Amino acid sequence: MVRRERFHLAAKPLASIVSVGLSKFGRREGVYARELFAEAALESFHRLEDFDPGKQIRAAFIGQMSESYERQSHTAPMAANWAGLLPVAATRVEDACASSGAALRCGIMAIKSGLYDIVLVGGMEKMTNLPTPEVTGILATASDFPFEQWNGMTFPGVFALMATSHMHEYGTTEEQMAMVAVKNHKHGALNPKAHMQKEITLDEAIKSRVVSWPLKIYDCSLITDGASVAILAKPKLAKKLSKNYVHIIGTGQAQDTFLMHERESLTTVKAAKLASQEAYKMADLRPKDVNVAEVHDCFTIAEIIAYEDLGFCRPGLGGKFIESGAPALDGSLPINTSGGLKSKGHPVGATGTAQIAELYLQLTGQADRRQVKDAEIGLAHNLGGSGATAVVHILRSG
Amino acid sequence: MVRRERFHLAAKPLASIVSVGLSKFGRREGVYARELFAEAALESFHRLEDFDPGKQIRAAFIGQMSESYERQSHTAPMAANWAGLLPVAATRVEDACASSGAALRCGIMAIKSGLYDIVLVGGMEKMTNLPTPEVTGILATASDFPFEQWNGMTFPGVFALMATSHMHEYGTTEEQMAMVAVKNHKHGALNPKAHMQKEITLDEAIKSRVVSWPLKIYDCSLITDGASVAILAKPKLAKKLSKNYVHIIGTGQAQDTFLMHERESLTTVKAAKLASQEAYKMADLRPKDVNVAEVHDCFTIAEIIAYEDLGFCRPGLGGKFIESGAPALDGSLPINTSGGLKSKGHPVGATGTAQIAELYLQLTGQADRRQVKDAEIGLAHNLGGSGATAVVHILRSG
Repeated sequence: MVRRERFHLAAKPLASIVSVGLSKFGRREGVYARELFAEAALESFHRLEDFDPGKQIRAAFIGQMSESYERQSHTAPMAANWAGLLPVAATRVEDACASSGAALRCGIMAIKSGLYDIVLVGGMEKMTNLPTPEVTGILATASDFPFEQWNGMTFPGVFALMATSHMHEYGTTEEQMAMVAVKNHKHGALNPKAHMQKEITLDEAIKSRVVSWPLKIYDCSLITDGASVAILAKPKLAKKLSKNYVHIIGTGQAQDTFLMHERESLTTVKAAKLASQEAYKMADLRPKDVNVAEVHDCFTIAEIIAYEDLGFCRPGLGGKFIESGAPALDGSLPINTSGGLKSKGHPVGATGTAQIAELYLQLTGQADRRQVKDAEIGLAHNLGGSGATAVVHILRSG
Repeated sequence: MVRRERFHLAAKPLASIVSVGLSKFGRREGVYARELFAEAALESFHRLEDFDPGKQIRAAFIGQMSESYERQSHTAPMAANWAGLLPVAATRVEDACASSGAALRCGIMAIKSGLYDIVLVGGMEKMTNLPTPEVTGILATASDFPFEQWNGMTFPGVFALMATSHMHEYGTTEEQMAMVAVKNHKHGALNPKAHMQKEITLDEAIKSRVVSWPLKIYDCSLITDGASVAILAKPKLAKKLSKNYVHIIGTGQAQDTFLMHERESLTTVKAAKLASQEAYKMADLRPKDVNVAEVHDCFTIAEIIAYEDLGFCRPGLGGKFIESGAPALDGSLPINTSGGLKSKGHPVGATGTAQIAELYLQLTGQADRRQVKDAEIGLAHNLGGSGATAVVHILRSG
């Protein structure tokens, strides 16, 4: 355990995660988002012993992207109520698909400020109650209304632009994108909480229906209902609350313009690069120190670009990286062991802390059939929109 | 200055406010919320000398209630972009009408955590582009969908229930509620940023059209477009950044159930009591120490209940309190010197930090014709929904 000792001498934890919870992801009929949230929260409470959530949790930051699915805003106090947390200070945080990544950051600051010892962070979204075109329209509110939405520019179109640019500039292929889908479905098949627990073949992926060329249906993440929760504590309290805890040692967030025509490059997400640089610096680590990562594969091309932006491979080599098998469960740097947004599903507000939940399981050795051996450093990469928001967190086993 | 010395020995500042900005409030045609935000942000930048916002501001928390007015979510990075702040970490915060009060709390934690030295907080809402019934419907998303909205229970109805309960239990009169309107319109007439700069008479208020009895049109706050900004800094930096700074010495937030039928009482907002108790305790102050307050007068009855919840008078005596003239500009505890939500206007996401902007002006002696003499301690009271959220802040002059 030479590596472990080295890291223990490194960055001071910002906050610790003592428990996580995840609702079943999928098409969850007949329930409101608040009920999914309570399902996730209860699981997180049950992992702890002698824990009185209503008394011990005094602040909650809850990510949710849209009020439109259920005509319900002001959702944080509602979810907190359903989880039995009143009169907890409950605040909704929204940064599109990075909502709960941003909520986690608020939770970290709440702990590190000294104002709170224990904080709940999480996210939720109930999406499948509306028809897909309407969902696509709601998701598109996270793009720029007068310049993008108004012109019918929904997210498959935006990411297709990034994909064709990457193909043009670096020779990335449709097969390579499909490989990301195959990998993540393979991982998701091992995750009982995943929306689609089904392996797919490369051929199925490539031959699937075109959504916005070159993106096909299997290049796109799922419209999913779900919620996720993580309980943060100040590092000194972590051991007292649970024998299974991990430390958050790096956090970064950056923004960029929404508009493709204003971006410096279409083959990289600048905000993700900046956010990861900030997180690496804080954690005093480099990309090669990461053992397991959850990245924002809203579309397969987004995962390929994430490999590059996070420094797992050089710019332009994301296609080769997936080809090499490195990001597979048995590879050198397993990525999206949960199944990712692609197969676990993408209830947008829940995604950021769902990534954290997977890393928590990995870093505490509780990931069951998808456990990465000796995983000690985990990274989460959460995008909002087409990358106008990026949030990166680095976790270390306790 | 005996009082001042006493307070200087009291609570340690959590963070300091070095500048504020407010867009003109009103019916602002032909602009997006992001443009109103930029207007407020630029004003806040212009108050500072040798300040490079794009470089010095690295985090922003921006309140906005609804994506539905402009079909635009993910609004924080967009607003930050328009204000020239990229790649600032920008996060939208939503707690209904308390969105920017909650954003301020996030900003305080960001500063106090040591992760940031300077943080921008603010809020915005563009509401007048839609017809009033649609706006009322959007506002109602902050109530409980299956139990309230679905039954046609919009906010005038909810607050009318609180008003009739208060009338029944304590003998509060329609005249007393109208007095709140008259006072706040009188104050608003002195505020060049206010939506309605127009005094009204008691007779006009009482005879105005009934919206939801006993609430008449002059008992209701305005549907307004606007944005507000405050720049926070760590206390040690405050003096360096501006000669006009105030300290935040108390913050409190609490939640309650949305549902009237689940509340312990309809004549008090429990969350506001809890939030103010928390803030007073942190500030080591009592209600009688407050010199000027901005309270959440979404309806006149809400201001009367606020007097009681904040401890400015005893429960049930809110009606008498307004009758006494105490909360008038020349009274013993001037309340809503800005004109309040009633007359300055209520662009919901902007309201919390707009209250803070008024207190900043008061506590730095820049409130012009509505200046409260020797104001040293200010309190802001910001509600979400019918009081499922309450946020209270206490400020002290620098």
